[in-house]
Parts: sequence; structure tokens; C-alpha cells
Amino acid sequence: MARPSVKENIVAAALETLHRQGFNATGVQDITDAAGVPKGSFYNHFESKEELGIEVIERYWQRALAGLGMLNDANVPPIVRLKSYFRALDEISRKKKYENGCLIGNMATEMSDQSRPIRERLAIVMAAWTRGIESCVREAQADGSMRRDIDARMIAAFLLNAWEGTVMRSKVDKDRAALEAFETVVFTSLTR
Amino acid sequence: MARPSVKENIVAAALETLHRQGFNATGVQDITDAAGVPKGSFYNHFESKEELGIEVIERYWQRALAGLGMLNDANVPPIVRLKSYFRALDEISRKKKYENGCLIGNMATEMSDQSRPIRERLAIVMAAWTRGIESCVREAQADGSMRRDIDARMIAAFLLNAWEGTVMRSKVDKDRAALEAFETVVFTSLTR
Repeated sequence: MARPSVKENIVAAALETLHRQGFNATGVQDITDAAGVPKGSFYNHFESKEELGIEVIERYWQRALAGLGMLNDANVPPIVRLKSYFRALDEISRKKKYENGCLIGNMATEMSDQSRPIRERLAIVMAAWTRGIESCVREAQADGSMRRDIDARMIAAFLLNAWEGTVMRSKVDKDRAALEAFETVVFTSLTR
Repeated sequence: MARPSVKENIVAAALETLHRQGFNATGVQDITDAAGVPKGSFYNHFESKEELGIEVIERYWQRALAGLGMLNDANVPPIVRLKSYFRALDEISRKKKYENGCLIGNMATEMSDQSRPIRERLAIVMAAWTRGIESCVREAQADGSMRRDIDARMIAAFLLNAWEGTVMRSKVDKDRAALEAFETVVFTSLTR
């Protein structure tokens, strides 16, 4: 196996530190220290912390995209897939005692008005995430398990946004109450 | 009228700068500069930026609480009040071109894992905010305009969390689409 490159080490370390501490609270030095590389090597690979921030969003999104795969599992009824999907996301947070939250949501909140390139990347990612949920919502509408009087794309966007707010609240309360409210309200009011 | 005190000037300036830039991107110097007071005067009034952060949350919350008043207006049907409430919040964001977002949500996302006192204050504020929404939800359930098969407190918590996620998404997309999804899904699926 090839040795991980310096660039790869920096991205992996940045994903972890930016997720835990946030963008502005993390210096380039914190990242290179965590990566075990000299600070000077940073600028051989990245123009700026902002450029690395975009790379980190991309990396996190690639992982999230793999997780979205369960929304396409044709062996499971679509409404069950949707419920399992959000429960699985919560399970990841619960194991971390509801620390850190969602990197996409964190960057959205902290950086949308500080960096246009970061905001634009987040908009693309959130649109793609919405589409991933939408296809499952559409299947659930088609098989009659989800209400059809609301456009699938709107339901999907709403679910993602409500989910991000749920993660934020769990981070404050450090418990599962926000997930319970999400699950109960969504799967009572949108199913039929 | 008494001249505003140095402390009051600092809190007012901090509310504006912390809301716009976030907590970690704002230094004490930025705040005292914005307040037009010497940096040295800061520590005569606050032990730390964290203590000021809590004061700012409290100040923002007092304003939000005044806005919550419309949820109690007995001249308007409760379901209409709820819709108008979230629409009024969106109107404030829209006027600011969806910049800044919600200070409570911003602090929750950025600071929950960095400062326990800030997190604890946010938990109290979000619980109180939930109760303010809950009483209106309860009225809407009582007059038959909102579904009764989900507990009012759960609906209220869900609405607040979903709203925070909606604000986050508007900040990324810089448009009203997230509000439209919120309004359509909530007021189609929870009303009857």
C-alpha cells in the first residue's frame, strides 16, 4: 500500500479538527500539528485554509453520499428506509455523545456569510443531498406509504433542513429528544 | 435620557458583531472598536468574551421573546398566528438578504461543544422558546385546526428545530425556498 501523502494527511486531520472545533477556531498550525507535518508544507498543497475547507466539505460529503446508499435498497420498503436513514445518522451522533454535529451544517452556519466559495460548495452539496432523499420520498409516494399532496422535492428539502435543525438541537441538549420529535412528527404526519 | 453606559455599548456592539461574524471570528478588540470604547474597559465589565457571549444570547432572547408575543394574540386564530409567526421571522431574514441567520442557532452550532456555560444557557432559551410555541400549538389542537394525534410539546420542539434548519438552509441558498418548503409541509401535514 502506498504511504499516505502529506496532502492526504492534512485533509484527514483537517476533517477531524474542523469538525470538532469549527473553522474559525482552528488555525493552520492546529491542522498541521494534528497531521504531524511541518506547518510550512501546508502551502505547498493548499492556497489557503478556505481551499482546504472546501476539500474537507467534499470529503465529508463523499462519506455522507455512501451513507445515502441505504435510501436506494430495493429490498426494504421506502418509508422504512427513510426512517432507518435518519435513525442511523442519529446513532452516529449518539455514539459521539451528540458532540460535533454535522460538518455540513456547522460550515453552513459559520461560513455562509464569510466565504462565498464555501457557501457555493455547500449549496451544491445540500442540493445533491436533497435529491438523494427525494428519490426515496418519490418511491414512498408511489407505493402509497407517504402522502402525495405535497411535492416530493419539497418534502425532501424540508426533511433535510428539519434534520439539520434536529442535529443542532441535540448538540445543545445532548440527548435524543430532538430525534424523537423529528421521528414522531415526520412519520406520523407525512405517512398514510 | 441617561447616556448609555459603557457596558451597554459593549453589549449592543457585541450583539451586532457576534451575530454577523460568529463567536470565534470576533475578537474582544473588534467588539470594543465597534462600541467605540477602549479595549481596556472591556475587562472592567466582563470576565471574558464567554461571559459577554451569554449576555448577548440573553439580550437576543429578550427580543425574540417580544416577537413570540404574536403567538398569544387572542384576536387571531391560533393556526394563523403560527403561520404568521414563522413568516415574520423569515421576513426579517429576507430583508437582510438571508445573512447572519439566527444568533441562537449560530451560537448553538459553533459553541455547544466549546463552552458549557454557553450551551447550558442555549438549552434554557430553546426550552423556553419551545414552550412559547407549544401554547399556541395546544390552542390550535383545541380549536380543531391542528392534528391532535401528536403531543403538542413534540410538535413545538419539532417546529423550532425544523425552523432553525430552515434558517440555516436559507443562509446557504440565499433565497426563500427553505421557508416555502417549511410552510407547505408543516401547514399541509399538521393541520386538518
